[in-house]
Amino acid sequence: MNETILELHGRDESYHEPRLPDVVVFPRNKEDVSKVLKFANERKIPVVPFGLGTSLEGHVIPVNGGISLDLSQMNAIIEVKESDFLVKVQPGVTRSVLNKELKKYGLFFTVDPGADATLGGMAATNASGTTSVRYGIMRDQVRDLEVVLANGDIIHTGSLAAKSSSGIHLNGMFVGSEGTLGVITELTLKVYGIPEAITAARAVFPSVKNAVDAVVGILAGGIPVARIEFVDAESVKKVNEYMETDYEESTTLFMEFHGNEAGLAQDVEFASEILKDHGCSNFQFEADSKARNQLWEARHNLLYAYKHTAGKKKIMLTDVSVPVSELTGAILHTRELIDASSIEGSIVGHVGDGNYHVLLLMDNENPEEVKEGEQINEEIVHYALKRGGTCTGEHGVGLGKAKYQRLEHGAAYEVMKSIKKTLDPNGILNPGKIFID
Amino acid sequence: MNETILELHGRDESYHEPRLPDVVVFPRNKEDVSKVLKFANERKIPVVPFGLGTSLEGHVIPVNGGISLDLSQMNAIIEVKESDFLVKVQPGVTRSVLNKELKKYGLFFTVDPGADATLGGMAATNASGTTSVRYGIMRDQVRDLEVVLANGDIIHTGSLAAKSSSGIHLNGMFVGSEGTLGVITELTLKVYGIPEAITAARAVFPSVKNAVDAVVGILAGGIPVARIEFVDAESVKKVNEYMETDYEESTTLFMEFHGNEAGLAQDVEFASEILKDHGCSNFQFEADSKARNQLWEARHNLLYAYKHTAGKKKIMLTDVSVPVSELTGAILHTRELIDASSIEGSIVGHVGDGNYHVLLLMDNENPEEVKEGEQINEEIVHYALKRGGTCTGEHGVGLGKAKYQRLEHGAAYEVMKSIKKTLDPNGILNPGKIFID
Repeated sequence: MNETILELHGRDESYHEPRLPDVVVFPRNKEDVSKVLKFANERKIPVVPFGLGTSLEGHVIPVNGGISLDLSQMNAIIEVKESDFLVKVQPGVTRSVLNKELKKYGLFFTVDPGADATLGGMAATNASGTTSVRYGIMRDQVRDLEVVLANGDIIHTGSLAAKSSSGIHLNGMFVGSEGTLGVITELTLKVYGIPEAITAARAVFPSVKNAVDAVVGILAGGIPVARIEFVDAESVKKVNEYMETDYEESTTLFMEFHGNEAGLAQDVEFASEILKDHGCSNFQFEADSKARNQLWEARHNLLYAYKHTAGKKKIMLTDVSVPVSELTGAILHTRELIDASSIEGSIVGHVGDGNYHVLLLMDNENPEEVKEGEQINEEIVHYALKRGGTCTGEHGVGLGKAKYQRLEHGAAYEVMKSIKKTLDPNGILNPGKIFID
Repeated sequence: MNETILELHGRDESYHEPRLPDVVVFPRNKEDVSKVLKFANERKIPVVPFGLGTSLEGHVIPVNGGISLDLSQMNAIIEVKESDFLVKVQPGVTRSVLNKELKKYGLFFTVDPGADATLGGMAATNASGTTSVRYGIMRDQVRDLEVVLANGDIIHTGSLAAKSSSGIHLNGMFVGSEGTLGVITELTLKVYGIPEAITAARAVFPSVKNAVDAVVGILAGGIPVARIEFVDAESVKKVNEYMETDYEESTTLFMEFHGNEAGLAQDVEFASEILKDHGCSNFQFEADSKARNQLWEARHNLLYAYKHTAGKKKIMLTDVSVPVSELTGAILHTRELIDASSIEGSIVGHVGDGNYHVLLLMDNENPEEVKEGEQINEEIVHYALKRGGTCTGEHGVGLGKAKYQRLEHGAAYEVMKSIKKTLDPNGILNPGKIFID
């Protein structure tokens, strides 16, 4: 097989070590997928589903070799069911392609993880991103999945009904199972009407605590905030250096509100009061689309700033989520960890969900630095788990978070393992991910 | 054991035949529950969890005898986590008790199934009701469950984090499992800020199709509708007879909108246009709390009207949900079925979710009538399943819908059965429910 194709299927966008598959298979339909799985199951060959390789915890790396099952050619938008607010797609459709099509109907797909990932991959990892505070995570959008099981059987996990109390709920279980329970071959997803009006905001705070308290105030006020992003002072500094801008180098919230014109006008008033109550003296609202982008510029350019100044270093991303009441403490603790290390790092967060990331600039060829980075990641995870949080808010388990599964889930981990064993007795489905002990 | 206590635990609010348990146990804490389950599991004695007995498909009837596990004394509100918008409760807390407590914090619990059920029971059946079009169903509110498994092990199915991509998602699987996979001993639930403003509406339409099209228009317009209830002409007639009122006897929608003052004012304008566009000439909006109740009077009194005129007859409730695009057809087909029968029946629906019920007045002692009622129910289910719907939108499977599980879920039913078998190998947990073949 072409070496380049093997290499493309041996890695993702994470810092995890690549490993080549033995072969890459490009199925055209569910019957192809079923045949591959039957074949592999009888011979106990590992099968690793692959979309576009944008995962961030090594999910698609075939650590035991075997078959990389590339679903990117199953990329049809099957049906837009306009008055049901549903769309039926194959797993290889990307979210940007979907949104381009939906726009014709005045609709949009809400989940925005940053990367232009495939919808199959987003369901497999339970992706989310900036909009989940308002519209929910990937799991909330899945009405039905067509899934091929390890033995080749094809099932549907849901129905087209907006709600159901029938059977045992399988939709939620297969979403986020990262290819360890089955291969997704079709998705029916919820879509929304494009909001009448959008207002963006940027607000600068004297401290992390002020910013997080303002977030709680905005949520408690019932203001329909669609995005609420935290960016720490070090991140703003990085952007200023890279872009030669002069944003105030302090804790900043970037927000977006969706609603109708009159409602948003009232919300802007109310939100301004809340921001002021929490020590914010520098804030700005914009409704026009161009001005909104301008306002969010520092947030948009943060990852570029890091990528362009990284040189040969790689970016390691942490990904815990904690209860919002624990967020100030978690962020301050994380900043201390970074400052006490020799590694450069910035904190950004989807703070409405208590989910935050550290971008750690790490030289993969320097074992000391890698060790230091991994220690920071581990301490952040332990801090979160002690406070009722999770080791991964949105990136998934993959290779990087498998070692925390038993610690996070306790006795429930045995239940998860028993389900895995029942559905994949030969352990062919994405081995080495989620379940390692 | 006291015969009255046994009798209370031998039935629910449905038309299903009662059956006494051998014993009723009232656990005080999870350790008690664990002991009971270990004991029962070793001896293969059936255990049927019981809340307040408000289920509508015979869920709590111990059809194989054994232990009725009454959780109503585990009724503490453990903690209101205000800034996390979470509340931790024991399973025996009722939603009215919870909402009374939450009001002190300016918060409310959104799920409203009508009955004042326990929260444990609502999670076990994945209850919903009038507000799910806006706030979601019971499954959407569950952040974490403490569950005792058949072998007595105690697990937590989630965390306190607002989002997580860790492990296999168990929250959703245990919600709606009707006591067949484990017994819920604690729930951490999402709560919301009480909205600033509420507007209610009543709108009368010349036809079912006009009303359903108006529902789609309102949803597509992104209007934050919190309740949208369909009531058919026959229902209004029944209310008029019972209450000596003179509401127009035609298809009627009852709505409620939540938001801020300015936003709702704009929404009322927009919604009025949509209603007019769909042939509605008789509509009314009210913002004041007393006037809102007055406006909804006919909807509120519908069930009373039936109960008070039922005599010795029982009310059988159907409960399918279909894609909204199929709703007009489904309701017209259902009306034909009722009119062709000798049974009196009305149609009401949570139409934003495509979920509707028929209230059928049935004499349980007349085998002919029971048979006719069951045939209508069956035809409604088959119609829904053929169109991508579900046999139960919100009441659950229990005894009444078990026979449709294989038809609805196909090959996925085998997956559900394998999970049941793995978690409850001795089949002690609520036998005879969901899984019968």
